[in-house]
Amino acid sequence: MQIQRPLNYARAHRQRFVSELKEFLRFASVSSQPERAGDIAKCANWLARHLKNIGLDQVRIVTTPGNPIVYASWLRAPERATLIIYGHYDVLPGEPLREWRTPPFTPTLSGENLHARGAADDKGQLFCHVKALESYLKTARALPVNVKCIFEGEEEIGSPHLNSFIARNQRALRADAAVISDTRMLAADRPAISYAQRGGLRAELEIKGPPHELHSGNFGGAVLNPLQALCQIIARLHDRQGRVTIPGFYDDVREWSEKERAFMARNGPTDEDLLRDAGMERGWGESGFSLYERTTVRPALTLNGMVGGHHSRGSKSIIPTHALAKISFRLVPDQDPKKIAALFCDCIERITPQGVRSEVRTFSPIEPALVDRNHPAVQAAAMAYKKGFGAAPVFIRSGGSIPVVNTFQKLLGIPAVLMGFGLPDDHIHGPNEKFHLPNFYKAIATSIWYLSLAARLRGSRPAEKHEEWRNR
Amino acid sequence: MQIQRPLNYARAHRQRFVSELKEFLRFASVSSQPERAGDIAKCANWLARHLKNIGLDQVRIVTTPGNPIVYASWLRAPERATLIIYGHYDVLPGEPLREWRTPPFTPTLSGENLHARGAADDKGQLFCHVKALESYLKTARALPVNVKCIFEGEEEIGSPHLNSFIARNQRALRADAAVISDTRMLAADRPAISYAQRGGLRAELEIKGPPHELHSGNFGGAVLNPLQALCQIIARLHDRQGRVTIPGFYDDVREWSEKERAFMARNGPTDEDLLRDAGMERGWGESGFSLYERTTVRPALTLNGMVGGHHSRGSKSIIPTHALAKISFRLVPDQDPKKIAALFCDCIERITPQGVRSEVRTFSPIEPALVDRNHPAVQAAAMAYKKGFGAAPVFIRSGGSIPVVNTFQKLLGIPAVLMGFGLPDDHIHGPNEKFHLPNFYKAIATSIWYLSLAARLRGSRPAEKHEEWRNR
Repeated sequence: MQIQRPLNYARAHRQRFVSELKEFLRFASVSSQPERAGDIAKCANWLARHLKNIGLDQVRIVTTPGNPIVYASWLRAPERATLIIYGHYDVLPGEPLREWRTPPFTPTLSGENLHARGAADDKGQLFCHVKALESYLKTARALPVNVKCIFEGEEEIGSPHLNSFIARNQRALRADAAVISDTRMLAADRPAISYAQRGGLRAELEIKGPPHELHSGNFGGAVLNPLQALCQIIARLHDRQGRVTIPGFYDDVREWSEKERAFMARNGPTDEDLLRDAGMERGWGESGFSLYERTTVRPALTLNGMVGGHHSRGSKSIIPTHALAKISFRLVPDQDPKKIAALFCDCIERITPQGVRSEVRTFSPIEPALVDRNHPAVQAAAMAYKKGFGAAPVFIRSGGSIPVVNTFQKLLGIPAVLMGFGLPDDHIHGPNEKFHLPNFYKAIATSIWYLSLAARLRGSRPAEKHEEWRNR
Repeated sequence: MQIQRPLNYARAHRQRFVSELKEFLRFASVSSQPERAGDIAKCANWLARHLKNIGLDQVRIVTTPGNPIVYASWLRAPERATLIIYGHYDVLPGEPLREWRTPPFTPTLSGENLHARGAADDKGQLFCHVKALESYLKTARALPVNVKCIFEGEEEIGSPHLNSFIARNQRALRADAAVISDTRMLAADRPAISYAQRGGLRAELEIKGPPHELHSGNFGGAVLNPLQALCQIIARLHDRQGRVTIPGFYDDVREWSEKERAFMARNGPTDEDLLRDAGMERGWGESGFSLYERTTVRPALTLNGMVGGHHSRGSKSIIPTHALAKISFRLVPDQDPKKIAALFCDCIERITPQGVRSEVRTFSPIEPALVDRNHPAVQAAAMAYKKGFGAAPVFIRSGGSIPVVNTFQKLLGIPAVLMGFGLPDDHIHGPNEKFHLPNFYKAIATSIWYLSLAARLRGSRPAEKHEEWRNR
């Protein structure tokens, strides 16, 4: 199959592709806010209709107990390999809104960047593959490889229903590799393939004190303040060296060889790179490790938010009734999120001071993931980058978590190829998120190349019919 | 002057008095929220009109750079003493609204209690004196004592313009004593006169980290989190014994004699009383002192509120850009709020970890206050309580702060008689604040008695004309 025609098609239709991406970004498909369920549904419908329009077969909206999965396939090349393309159409909330220069769900072009919540994470990156598929289907009426698209709507809340969907449909989802574009490159001219992801665990820690607000004049100094108790507990979770103090926390952390650490040092971002991306002057954390190591092969406990008492304008002399901290753990091989949850609960119970009560809730356990960077599906991705971006990718570890990477490896026995198209300054998860349009165009070309190269992957299996599809 | 007629009048008009108090409570006269300036103005106008209607002379709304002071006087008994009646018509915010059983500015009767923000602090208590004045003026067309009412609108924000008002008008405000009802009794049958107030100082501590929110996967473990830094700083402000660790904080704290401590133990609330009022099972704080001592003769640092990062529903994997804590100090003789502010700033600067910046703002310094409990004006109040409540008051110290107590003592050279009519479970400053109506009625009778007894106070001075009144 000629590759030049789809490449030319993609180049010729750039402007329309950007318009369509803006349509996609307009849906406030926030998975963590139940009141956005309607936007989620509209977004899923739009995406499914779009996949049908570009010429994919078997487009369906698979219901789950949570948000639907948009599925589409093209399985007309029985002799060739099968590729899963995974992405997520859900996004994080836009808050804090006042820190956005343009509204998060009003996609806005500014120079070479398209600003919107989800522009890079992950609607924009997902859309690169969609447009690559279109470029083949509209020029050749065929794809060079069999394709199964799985676009979920719950990634930002830990993919609570994806595992069971994949587990129930292991046969229907058989493939040779999965490609996921939900990570970042080191710079616009430095593509990267992630071969490791940290796992994760979310927790809420609530401290409860007096049954009603107390006047801080009448009671200040005589009863323990739950907000102060929470600060004391949080402060005790790290030592002065930046290490997490939860007993047993590091027990299962894998030690890496000098060879692997040297590989990381050669290929990964430097401390200076990381600090520049963060906009910070100095690093922090566990001594004996580079900042890149601290964010990839070392676990972390991060306070995402905290609230208690009177914190808006004006003053109020009170001792509050309760205080809440939102925490996320990032975990590494061979830590087990469930074990970490238990250790955390035990630790909090032990260090909660007398006079207040503590309550711990944990959510979204995600196991750490590793991908063999020598796997042919990964090497094919490296070649595709060379063609699309004109540069060989570096192999890096990622500090974030994409729950499905493990699932693909464990349940389907296939590698997840993490072809990132985001940039370090895309501000994903923060205000003013953007996608760099030159990356959008190059990523489409890269995906066109990858679809072609993936056709030759070994171990290809015959395509399946979907009659046996199981939703529950 | 006969006392039975005003007492009878007050008893006969109880129902109307409650209706009028409800009108007064309906104004959301929140001084700490600038958008409530209109409600403040309406409330001040209502109060001034009311004072005119009951028959006071010289009613005026005195403008200040902040909220107006409502002034009224009756000075037609040149041979008798002059009493200042001080109160405040401003209130704290109603938030958190969802914890109120009835809306804070919709006064609601529930059994013998009237629920509303300001019901006890201080509109209800202020109104007891207003109704006592009315009871004389409507029955005898005269008062037994000269009266100058000063009802301010900025007490809850530290009375920033009251001092200068009093300083500018020292001659016009000359009096023999000031009565203030903005404190509480020990129980409905245990009246109390406060002879000490803690001073205070408010502070905001803001910690600033990265210039924009960071993804906690990509950066968690490698940069210092401002929210975590804030927790660490807050945790360091107390030692394990509950003492404040700011260097020099206790240097000027007065030691009290065994005799005074024994007096306090005999007259003040027990640990059990205080814990019952707080709804707590155990106390906290500086060892070696009773809970009553910890809240009166010992200083305190209380966290009133804190906020940072993502704290609403849903999850967001971020490292926030900044975090804020709202703090209030309660200070005791002979601590100087300005010195404490400087010590606090120094301390924060010293303990702020590298990698984040701290900013401290301090407001509303209030000096601690003491009143001679043997002063005739105070002893007259004790007698009035015996008549109004049928019980002799105990003399207690208060943990709160009423800025004007010091001002009256220092600028006018007169004692402030702190006749409290609130109850420990009135929930002042919290949701579901209320005023116990039997206290309202008995307090009016007590005030009627006090106005009569105060007439005989020594050192009475001739009444002044107000032509020299100075607003700026």
